Amino acid sequence: MRIDGEAFTTIWPGADGTSINIIDQTRLPHRFEIVSIADVAGAARAIKDMQVRGAPLIGVMAAYGLALAMRADPSDDNLRRASATLAATRPTAVNQQWAIAAMTRLLTPLPPPARFKAAFDRAGEIARDDVALCEAIGVHGLSLIDAIAARKPSGAAVNILTHCNAGWLATVDWGTATAPIYKAHDAGLNVHVFVDETRPRNQGAALTAFELGQHGVPHTVIADNAGGHLMQHGEIDLVIVGTDRTTASGDVCNKIGTYLKALAAFDNGVPFYVAAPSPSIDFSILDGRREIPIEIRSAAEVTHISGLGADGEVATVRLTPKGSAALNPAFDVTPARLVTGLITERGVIAADRAALAKAFPERISLRG
Amino acid sequence: MRIDGEAFTTIWPGADGTSINIIDQTRLPHRFEIVSIADVAGAARAIKDMQVRGAPLIGVMAAYGLALAMRADPSDDNLRRASATLAATRPTAVNQQWAIAAMTRLLTPLPPPARFKAAFDRAGEIARDDVALCEAIGVHGLSLIDAIAARKPSGAAVNILTHCNAGWLATVDWGTATAPIYKAHDAGLNVHVFVDETRPRNQGAALTAFELGQHGVPHTVIADNAGGHLMQHGEIDLVIVGTDRTTASGDVCNKIGTYLKALAAFDNGVPFYVAAPSPSIDFSILDGRREIPIEIRSAAEVTHISGLGADGEVATVRLTPKGSAALNPAFDVTPARLVTGLITERGVIAADRAALAKAFPERISLRG
Repeated sequence: MRIDGEAFTTIWPGADGTSINIIDQTRLPHRFEIVSIADVAGAARAIKDMQVRGAPLIGVMAAYGLALAMRADPSDDNLRRASATLAATRPTAVNQQWAIAAMTRLLTPLPPPARFKAAFDRAGEIARDDVALCEAIGVHGLSLIDAIAARKPSGAAVNILTHCNAGWLATVDWGTATAPIYKAHDAGLNVHVFVDETRPRNQGAALTAFELGQHGVPHTVIADNAGGHLMQHGEIDLVIVGTDRTTASGDVCNKIGTYLKALAAFDNGVPFYVAAPSPSIDFSILDGRREIPIEIRSAAEVTHISGLGADGEVATVRLTPKGSAALNPAFDVTPARLVTGLITERGVIAADRAALAKAFPERISLRG
Repeated sequence: MRIDGEAFTTIWPGADGTSINIIDQTRLPHRFEIVSIADVAGAARAIKDMQVRGAPLIGVMAAYGLALAMRADPSDDNLRRASATLAATRPTAVNQQWAIAAMTRLLTPLPPPARFKAAFDRAGEIARDDVALCEAIGVHGLSLIDAIAARKPSGAAVNILTHCNAGWLATVDWGTATAPIYKAHDAGLNVHVFVDETRPRNQGAALTAFELGQHGVPHTVIADNAGGHLMQHGEIDLVIVGTDRTTASGDVCNKIGTYLKALAAFDNGVPFYVAAPSPSIDFSILDGRREIPIEIRSAAEVTHISGLGADGEVATVRLTPKGSAALNPAFDVTPARLVTGLITERGVIAADRAALAKAFPERISLRG
C-alpha cells in the first residue's frame, strides 16, 4: 500500500541479499523509520518489542529470522535453538508457530550448507503467499461492502468499524480486515472507517489511522468506548476485525476489546465479520475461551502512554496515580455465536465447525 | 473521604463566607490543588472545564454559582442570566437543571437583598442532602456486596468493576457507585476494584484510582477493552456504575462505554448495578436512546492526552497521525433490560417503570 505516495510492503530483503528491512512500527505514526535486521536475535527482538506485529507479519518475520540464523550457523543445534528463541516471543500467535514448523520441516532434511538459501527463499515465498492470501480476502470482503453500498442511497458512505490494526502493517501488504476496505476504496466506492484507538497500545490510533490516511481512505478515530453508541444510532454499517487465532468452531481470539464490539454489533443487528486467513485457524482447538492462553503484557502499557509532545519529540507520560496497580490482558475471545461470518481467502463462510471443515478439508484430514 | 489521611469533601465554603473552594479535578491525579471560586463566571467555567464534574457535584456547583451571582447582583434579571449561563454548561446533566430550577423557585419570590444568604444557605443544604443521599446508597449497596462476600470462600476478595468516576470526587462525599465500596471497605470486607481507565478523559485512571488509593481501597486499573474478558473468566463478581441521567423506564445514560460493559455483564451473568440517586432520574422521558441528547465533546480529547512526564511536569502528547479526524461522543445509553437493579437512596429496585414509580411516587404525581 502507499506511504506518502510510494508503494511499500512491511518487510523486504535488504540490497545485500542477507539482511531484512522492516518498518519500525513502534515509531509510527510520528516517525517513519526503516530498520535493518541482521540476525535471529534482532528478529526475535523485533517481534518481542513489536517493531513488527500482527499475526501474519510476525509469521514472515519468524521465517526470515530462521533464515538469518542459518546464515550464521546452519547446524541442527542452532536450528533448534533459533526455533525455540522465536517461538517464545509471542505465545498467542499461531502463524508464527506455523511458520517455524514449516521452515523446520523444510530445513531439517537439508545438508547444512544448503539451509540458508533454502530458508531465505522459503521465507520470501511465505511473504508472497501472504500477499496473495490477503488480496483474496480483499476480493471476497469487497462483495460484502458492495452489497451494503447497493442498499444505501447512491454515493452515501459505507461506514465500517474496525478494532486494532489488522491492516497492511500487520501483514506484508493489503492487511486482513483492511483488505476489503482498500479494495473498495481503490474501486471508487465511498467507504469511511471508524477506527477504534485500541488501548492500551493504541494500534488503531497509531497504525490503522496512519495507514488509512497515507492511502487516502477517509476515517475517524474514536475511543474504544464509543462503538456501541454509534451502533445504537445506526452509524455503523459493518464491523470488520482481524484475528490472531481462530478455533475449529469459529471462536475468534483477537485484540482485547473485540468481544465487546461483537456484543454491541449483535445487540444492534450490525454485521460483524472477521477477516480470517487460514494460517490463523487452529483446527486443534474448539473452545476459544477455555483453550486459548491469553498473553498478559506489561502493566506499563496501561499506566503510561507515548505520543508526540509540543516540542515535536515523542514522549512518554504516566496516566495513573503513583501506587495504582494495572492489569493488561492483550487478547480476548469472541464466541462464534457473535460472528456473522469469516472472510477467508476461499470466500466468506459461517463461523462454525461445519463451514470451516468444508472450506479447509485438507486441514481436517491432516489431523486424522 | 480521605486524601493523604485527611478528611475532604469536593466543595466547601471559603473562610470568607462568600467564596467557594473546590478541588481542581483537571489537575488530578498528579497535582492536588484547591481553587477558590468567587463569581458565577468562575462557577460556569469550573463546570465547563470539568474542574468539577460528576452529575451530583455539578448540581451543587451550579447552586453555589447562583448564590455567587446573587451576591454580585440579586436582581431578577441577573437571576435569569446566571441561570441561563449555568444551564448551558453541560446539557446532559439533569442534576444541574434540577438544582437551578430549585434555586430559582426559592429565590424568585424573595426580595433581592435576601437572596444571597438564602441562596448560599440552600446551596449548602443541597450539598448536605447529597452527602446523606450518597451515604444511603452506600448502605443499600453494601448489602449487595455483603451477599456476594457470603457466597465466596471466607476472606476472598469481592471483585467489583466500575467505569468512569462515580466516586466521591463526582459528588460531595461518598460518591454514588463507590459509596457501597467505601462502606464495605470501612466495614472490613475484602473488596477489590477493577477500574476502567475510561477513555477519552481517563476519569477512571486519573480520579477513581486516585480516590480509591488515597482511601486505601485495593484496586487495579484496566483498559476499557479488558472488562469483557475478565467477566468471561469469572474475575468480576459485580459491576457498579453511576448515571448522569436515568429515564422513568430505567434506561441509564452514563459515560461512553458503559453500554459495552452492561452487554458483557449480561452475556456472562454478572450482576450489573447502577447507583442512581433520585435527582439523576428524569421522569419526563421513557426512551433513553431516542430522547437523551448526547453531548459531543472536543475531538482533541481523543487525539491528545495528558499525563506526568519524566521531568515531573504534566504534558500533553498527540496520539493520532496528523490529518486523522476524531469523534468524541461523551455518553451512551444502557437500556434497562441490561440493568440488574438501581441502587437508589430508598433501596435497591428493579430498573423498570413500575419499580421507579413505586419508589418515587411523589415524582410521578408532580408530573400530573
